[in-house]
Amino acid sequence: MPTTYINARPTVDVAEATTLPQEFYTDPDLFRREMETIHFDMWLAAGRAEQLKQPGDFFVCEVANASVVVLRDDSSSIRAFHNTCRHRGTLLCAVDHGNLAGRIQCPYHAWTYRLDGTLANAPHMEKVEGFRESQYSLRAVHTATWDGHIFINLSPNPMRFEEHLARLVEKFRPWRMEELRLVERRTYSLAANWKLIIQNYSECLHCPIAHPQLQKNSHYMSGDNEAPSATILGGRMDLRDGVTTLTMSGRTTRNCLPGLTEEDRRRVYYYCLLPNFLLNLHPDYMLTFTMWPRAVDRTDIVCEWHFHPDEIAKSGFDPKDAIEFWEITNRQDWELSERAQKGIASKGYQPGPYSNREELLIALDQFVLDRLNRRPAESQGR
Amino acid sequence: MPTTYINARPTVDVAEATTLPQEFYTDPDLFRREMETIHFDMWLAAGRAEQLKQPGDFFVCEVANASVVVLRDDSSSIRAFHNTCRHRGTLLCAVDHGNLAGRIQCPYHAWTYRLDGTLANAPHMEKVEGFRESQYSLRAVHTATWDGHIFINLSPNPMRFEEHLARLVEKFRPWRMEELRLVERRTYSLAANWKLIIQNYSECLHCPIAHPQLQKNSHYMSGDNEAPSATILGGRMDLRDGVTTLTMSGRTTRNCLPGLTEEDRRRVYYYCLLPNFLLNLHPDYMLTFTMWPRAVDRTDIVCEWHFHPDEIAKSGFDPKDAIEFWEITNRQDWELSERAQKGIASKGYQPGPYSNREELLIALDQFVLDRLNRRPAESQGR
Amino acid sequence: MPTTYINARPTVDVAEATTLPQEFYTDPDLFRREMETIHFDMWLAAGRAEQLKQPGDFFVCEVANASVVVLRDDSSSIRAFHNTCRHRGTLLCAVDHGNLAGRIQCPYHAWTYRLDGTLANAPHMEKVEGFRESQYSLRAVHTATWDGHIFINLSPNPMRFEEHLARLVEKFRPWRMEELRLVERRTYSLAANWKLIIQNYSECLHCPIAHPQLQKNSHYMSGDNEAPSATILGGRMDLRDGVTTLTMSGRTTRNCLPGLTEEDRRRVYYYCLLPNFLLNLHPDYMLTFTMWPRAVDRTDIVCEWHFHPDEIAKSGFDPKDAIEFWEITNRQDWELSERAQKGIASKGYQPGPYSNREELLIALDQFVLDRLNRRPAESQGR
Repeated sequence: MPTTYINARPTVDVAEATTLPQEFYTDPDLFRREMETIHFDMWLAAGRAEQLKQPGDFFVCEVANASVVVLRDDSSSIRAFHNTCRHRGTLLCAVDHGNLAGRIQCPYHAWTYRLDGTLANAPHMEKVEGFRESQYSLRAVHTATWDGHIFINLSPNPMRFEEHLARLVEKFRPWRMEELRLVERRTYSLAANWKLIIQNYSECLHCPIAHPQLQKNSHYMSGDNEAPSATILGGRMDLRDGVTTLTMSGRTTRNCLPGLTEEDRRRVYYYCLLPNFLLNLHPDYMLTFTMWPRAVDRTDIVCEWHFHPDEIAKSGFDPKDAIEFWEITNRQDWELSERAQKGIASKGYQPGPYSNREELLIALDQFVLDRLNRRPAESQGR
Repeated sequence: MPTTYINARPTVDVAEATTLPQEFYTDPDLFRREMETIHFDMWLAAGRAEQLKQPGDFFVCEVANASVVVLRDDSSSIRAFHNTCRHRGTLLCAVDHGNLAGRIQCPYHAWTYRLDGTLANAPHMEKVEGFRESQYSLRAVHTATWDGHIFINLSPNPMRFEEHLARLVEKFRPWRMEELRLVERRTYSLAANWKLIIQNYSECLHCPIAHPQLQKNSHYMSGDNEAPSATILGGRMDLRDGVTTLTMSGRTTRNCLPGLTEEDRRRVYYYCLLPNFLLNLHPDYMLTFTMWPRAVDRTDIVCEWHFHPDEIAKSGFDPKDAIEFWEITNRQDWELSERAQKGIASKGYQPGPYSNREELLIALDQFVLDRLNRRPAESQGR
Repeated sequence: MPTTYINARPTVDVAEATTLPQEFYTDPDLFRREMETIHFDMWLAAGRAEQLKQPGDFFVCEVANASVVVLRDDSSSIRAFHNTCRHRGTLLCAVDHGNLAGRIQCPYHAWTYRLDGTLANAPHMEKVEGFRESQYSLRAVHTATWDGHIFINLSPNPMRFEEHLARLVEKFRPWRMEELRLVERRTYSLAANWKLIIQNYSECLHCPIAHPQLQKNSHYMSGDNEAPSATILGGRMDLRDGVTTLTMSGRTTRNCLPGLTEEDRRRVYYYCLLPNFLLNLHPDYMLTFTMWPRAVDRTDIVCEWHFHPDEIAKSGFDPKDAIEFWEITNRQDWELSERAQKGIASKGYQPGPYSNREELLIALDQFVLDRLNRRPAESQGR
């Protein structure tokens, strides 16, 4: 007998719940203000600790006009710096990842920094009166890690990282995400505002129409959302009877991740840690998305598939079924997000009503409005 | 004995008749104001009724940031709507023409509209307090037809269409344009402001220099212009002795359109119906141009060749001579228009004097200035 | 015994010598103000007299949105004009060089100008009241020549050219530059602000790191700069023992230019004549760069190699060693300049300290600030 799903979410009032005006998706100045009050003030998922195996290993993140080098230093700590020389501003790292071999040297005039960011050598500065090497360390960017995920924060006074993660720390501990290993990375460049990607992610009303494969594996009315908080929008969906994970077939030969409850083995969790991280936890693998706004109508997305090392080690390990499932689903979502961008940017667009199953989108809009309305002092963290 | 042509047009005063300042061709803000007061307020030629044969047939028009779906509804009426869903703004039609099979369904969340624009189904909106389907019809765009030509008007209170057409209704009745059928469409994208294309169209002083083939068929000093009106700039040229139409050879085996006077069989009429329609009536075929401004320095042009169905039905029908003639002439004109754009955008440009044979250009400039200077209330039609 | 070089330049104070704020490299409005107060007000190197051999020979220069035709007129004088017709603004010359055959004719309506810029024929203007051909000459741009170099000045009241050249007239007379002949031209388009290219040119601290080949031929601490003046930044470097010029091998079979002193045969002079000319004088050849800012982050550069006609005439003449040397060195410099642009445009950039061997860069920044701060009246020349 098929399950019946009930729309149990609270009623909303059309007068109070409409989409944002056009300029939030088209105005470059408003985009710059969003970056200042949101992306440059909050914790951003940057990558995985396993990408920085050795001292000197680094990768580069770019968000709006910011470029940040994330690296492992000589004492194995993870650090991050603005990717610009303190001398004449030259970009220090021009490739997206690599190894720095003990020093960061500017290719222009050989100013050389230790991996902790301090200036080790600045040729020909000896005749500059008042010059102190100690005043020209690389400009540091705060970092933090959570179960293998590296985060950066460009604010001088970031919110405490634990406050940012809030209840997720405990909630997702059983997945032991720090043990998982990256198997596939795909990068996409979308002609869409960053908020449209979170909107697309935060409701499944479009799933029966846009994602027939996903709908076969999980009914779009299954599961539920948590009440949104200041930094977290998320919920879960339930796998249909006979389905064991999200793959093309709905099944897998991989074991479930160790430590999951019986209940969690029948669910997929989808969480947006605002403003740039999407985390999908399946019974047997983790899918992550980091979103990098580049312009009001342009966002880069890095999508990664992570598996348990015991499974990876098996001779028959084949992640293709999970990769293909999400590659197809991603493409469907990117097309819809780009189409939303086009329609919203058109003259005929007017804010429209949200349904009661789009409550996370209402929360996202409110989050954006709150952040934009903060006085500068408030956004300086605590 | 060769005909002598006399420059009989009224004398102009250089102090009062100069080209517009540079910013009218280069300033994106001024372009947006032009769109608001001109293209978004006036009747625009959109296509031909024959493009919408069946109920559900549609095509899409784009002007500046507006996207409009033009369709034939279930009762065979022509209607037009802004191409954006009333829910979250998604672009409804992403291809430039097709058939809608009874309904317009948004591909994102399946909001579904009847072909008259009313909302038929909005899934999961039942828990939205105050939601009335009747309030979320597609936003309508006015339409009108004239002898087979479809027009749209994005203003909420358009000028009466008959007032817009004015004397043309009667003037071109003998051509029975509604009987003609499309044989060829060519689309061009020009790096030029939309006004430069109308300027190029509205004088033939450049013809002996730029269009040797046209000059062979019709002397540039032949014919005359009508006195310009609020919406119409146009005139006629006369075919040279021995020439029967505008083709590569100056001759054709096609019959003249039925119903033309002896006089009209010796003439070509060229009319600009402001702001986006160019209509060329030859003895045996109709050439139309619709112009779609996309940016201050970018205009798309759709050029179409229309013939009489009796001629099309003949076994030897070959429109190539007319198509090639205008393809060559168009290319010559587009090159000049793009070159004008470059020179006007250059630092050295200063407004220059018009001659008395450029009186339609003076009228075009005045039309633009008048429209830009209207108070918003005035542009709300009547 | 290797030479020891001493850093003898004056000490600088870090508090007063820092790089310019980010907006000087990224803000389109500030770029436009720079163009108005610098490039449109000063003498710009445009090309060489030998490019205009015959009356009617011309070439076109483009800086920001200005387009200028430089030509040789019927009396063999060099003249320059804004490249836009006085009628409706059409670009007159659409190719970058050629021969005008006695007249400049607009391809649109055949307005025709003599090579001295006066209007010779304006068809159909006879019915324009108040029209005087004498009032519609092409808008002249001032020109001057110096030892074979052609300069243009877009200001209505340019600084005296001799004042602009200052001490260089006498200093470089022995090179007899007017006798040299162009052998190779290479054009580059850089994603960098124009000032970054002059900065790169005006110090050799980066040479040991970026230019191993150059460093082999000339020690970066050799030579010295002259005290900078209002229009000139420059100095010299010394060739190492055994090196006779700047080529891949450091040697050449070409004779030195006639007239050089023993001392000058051991030196390379590098001078920036602000704002767009870089002049490198080697013992046996002259290298010139003209820089053409197109946008705040885009500059076109024309690099030319000039040799003595006696050498060119020799059967074994082969300029490849000098061309290859500078092609490699240029590519290294362009990469650094583009990388500086990226880093300075990034969020983390802050002005940094100059060393005492970057004194020409300090002078460049001061020059820019002085020019930007002038009242309009002052920039009107004298």
